[in-house]
Amino acid sequence: MHRFPEHLIQGYANFLAGRFAREQSRYSELAATGQSPTTMIIACCDSRAAPETIFDAGPGELFVLRNVANLVPTYQPDGGQHGTSAAIEFAVVSLEVSNIVVMGHGRCGGIHAALSPNAKPLDAGDFIGKWMSMLGPVSAQVGQNALMTPAERQTALERISIRNSIGNLRTFPYVAKLETEGKLALHGAWFDISTGELWVMNPDTGDFSRPDV
Amino acid sequence: MHRFPEHLIQGYANFLAGRFAREQSRYSELAATGQSPTTMIIACCDSRAAPETIFDAGPGELFVLRNVANLVPTYQPDGGQHGTSAAIEFAVVSLEVSNIVVMGHGRCGGIHAALSPNAKPLDAGDFIGKWMSMLGPVSAQVGQNALMTPAERQTALERISIRNSIGNLRTFPYVAKLETEGKLALHGAWFDISTGELWVMNPDTGDFSRPDV
Amino acid sequence: MHRFPEHLIQGYANFLAGRFAREQSRYSELAATGQSPTTMIIACCDSRAAPETIFDAGPGELFVLRNVANLVPTYQPDGGQHGTSAAIEFAVVSLEVSNIVVMGHGRCGGIHAALSPNAKPLDAGDFIGKWMSMLGPVSAQVGQNALMTPAERQTALERISIRNSIGNLRTFPYVAKLETEGKLALHGAWFDISTGELWVMNPDTGDFSRPDV
Amino acid sequence: MHRFPEHLIQGYANFLAGRFAREQSRYSELAATGQSPTTMIIACCDSRAAPETIFDAGPGELFVLRNVANLVPTYQPDGGQHGTSAAIEFAVVSLEVSNIVVMGHGRCGGIHAALSPNAKPLDAGDFIGKWMSMLGPVSAQVGQNALMTPAERQTALERISIRNSIGNLRTFPYVAKLETEGKLALHGAWFDISTGELWVMNPDTGDFSRPDV
Repeated sequence: MHRFPEHLIQGYANFLAGRFAREQSRYSELAATGQSPTTMIIACCDSRAAPETIFDAGPGELFVLRNVANLVPTYQPDGGQHGTSAAIEFAVVSLEVSNIVVMGHGRCGGIHAALSPNAKPLDAGDFIGKWMSMLGPVSAQVGQNALMTPAERQTALERISIRNSIGNLRTFPYVAKLETEGKLALHGAWFDISTGELWVMNPDTGDFSRPDV
Repeated sequence: MHRFPEHLIQGYANFLAGRFAREQSRYSELAATGQSPTTMIIACCDSRAAPETIFDAGPGELFVLRNVANLVPTYQPDGGQHGTSAAIEFAVVSLEVSNIVVMGHGRCGGIHAALSPNAKPLDAGDFIGKWMSMLGPVSAQVGQNALMTPAERQTALERISIRNSIGNLRTFPYVAKLETEGKLALHGAWFDISTGELWVMNPDTGDFSRPDV
Repeated sequence: MHRFPEHLIQGYANFLAGRFAREQSRYSELAATGQSPTTMIIACCDSRAAPETIFDAGPGELFVLRNVANLVPTYQPDGGQHGTSAAIEFAVVSLEVSNIVVMGHGRCGGIHAALSPNAKPLDAGDFIGKWMSMLGPVSAQVGQNALMTPAERQTALERISIRNSIGNLRTFPYVAKLETEGKLALHGAWFDISTGELWVMNPDTGDFSRPDV
Repeated sequence: MHRFPEHLIQGYANFLAGRFAREQSRYSELAATGQSPTTMIIACCDSRAAPETIFDAGPGELFVLRNVANLVPTYQPDGGQHGTSAAIEFAVVSLEVSNIVVMGHGRCGGIHAALSPNAKPLDAGDFIGKWMSMLGPVSAQVGQNALMTPAERQTALERISIRNSIGNLRTFPYVAKLETEGKLALHGAWFDISTGELWVMNPDTGDFSRPDV
């Protein structure tokens, strides 16, 4: 039998001696009363951009969906098994969160794949290709802009995709209704791995800028 | 215009002054060289069970997929947009991770929904119902076991579901091939929110027990 | 007779009592020996982005051309009176500068005009329209990108234009020759009026990033 | 890849720690509201005669065009790309400045070239030659005046050229109209690099004298 990864066992020992020892009563209370996070984060699987790390979040604070490139599909009640839609529904209808943050990040591998549809080892015929095809014509249009550098195209699509996902969130009837009623706010954020900077989207203009911290 | 949530801005300021300040060169290096995590974690969206927290993981260490109830579907190359499969493909084919850990946890809302298909506000006609139907006959069978208490049924299905997801992982041809070649190991883990205990699955028997730490 | 503007007289008095008093011998020496700046800056007329201010430059340090939107035309030895080309020729052939920096800036009115060709009071039939037509198809292509916000299009064109001007500098035979011989380096820079940040162009990739200061 | 000039990086660091630190809110306000300078300066590219330095001007104060020898051509709406005319148009029509100052200076290399049309390395066949030909018969006439010393001819042409440029400004219909209406004033100035003296033109007589400061 293979062993459970040693680095995880070691990390878990650190958790037990550190955060858990400090927050034991919080975990106990959260187990008894259930979770009631006020914020859902839709983030990427990338190992360098964990929401709990970037927002220094404690247990019970963030309900976190993570998929490749933090994409949200449109509302498609077609009977299919839509994992992202299920998580959104759970957060909004069951947990009644007040905020949804779509958080992208620099150097995103999924966005890179969308801009390089024929790159190996992943290509358009794979799951990644199909998944990123959600950005379809948008990524094609950005990818063909020869005036921008590859890095500029990458950043542009990362941000366009966040706005696109926020637009898709509004196709969910309960999201649209609650937003209109002022009970739910949709936010965009973009994390720069290199510099550690968080850029926040202006909901009126769609532009990203760094908040005062 | 609504403001970005204040608790996130405050948490980000803590991150900047704390972890980022200490690991700035690590972030910078990760941005320059790209990520190369050795482990993928498939976890739940639950706000009380963040993998980076439980495994005290630093930037670049864990590639993390999070969906409701940490489910893995079977391999279905039907052209659909399968977010979970895309993340698995990205981790295995592109990042070439050595380990995949399916991590469940106690008091999981998704598992609870699977065992209570007619509970409000979510029911079988919703995205959550469709998503959890992946456990189909399994959850029905557990749910009808009147000999176990509701809490026992819940824990049982949480663990059955982990083994089910690991089985489904093996339907992906590259996962099966790499596991056979000894290049990829599949693991199960279950986190008890109440006690902070991590339970690890014995890959031979499927049983869960607490590792020495 | 109208009077010379009072704010200029007052500013000149400050100069006399301040910088000139401190650097009198430098001015005297520069008058006797002539100027020998090593760097030419091609900047915009904008009142918020003076090169001497941003680079805290003293007398004799920077040879500065300023036109609307810091544009460089291609080499056109057609006998016309080309002011920008004359300044480049003077800097490279007569002064033998080692560096040319094309410095753009955020919120540039010329770039804005290029992206809004029918806005009043300036339109395409005016000198501004003709001047900015140097960016011709480039600005049209950026202007039609509906996926980016107006602010993103503005920043994108500001940076594309800098790369375009650097490309045009290379159409001057002596610039190309000296650059090849390693005697002249071409640089790009972009100043963010709002934050005071200077972004520097990577000459290999064309990307802009903030230097360590 | 070559590096951005170190003296500029150092100067920028001084700016950040000095003027920018003191005037951060001014920059921020200027970014938000746009520039609204009341004065345009038409100056030379010379590294020893920066308007912001000589007039100790802060951000947002001066809209500055700089070309070789601070020349203004006549109004030529011929569809050509006239950089100087575009800047004048932008200042007068869009920014609605109240003052335009044509500022020359002693020991001007462009004026020297106009008086030495066959000097190397620049000659009349070059861009500088074409550009300075704007002074055409005027510079020939001064150049042939054997009664004056070379230094006297140089200063004489520097001042004649300022008056010539002011005359050319009046060929722009909107400049003439606004001046007649008392909404725009045209000024001449000449800076003596050696002594730091500013000489101001009397608009009635065209003579230059030192103002009381």
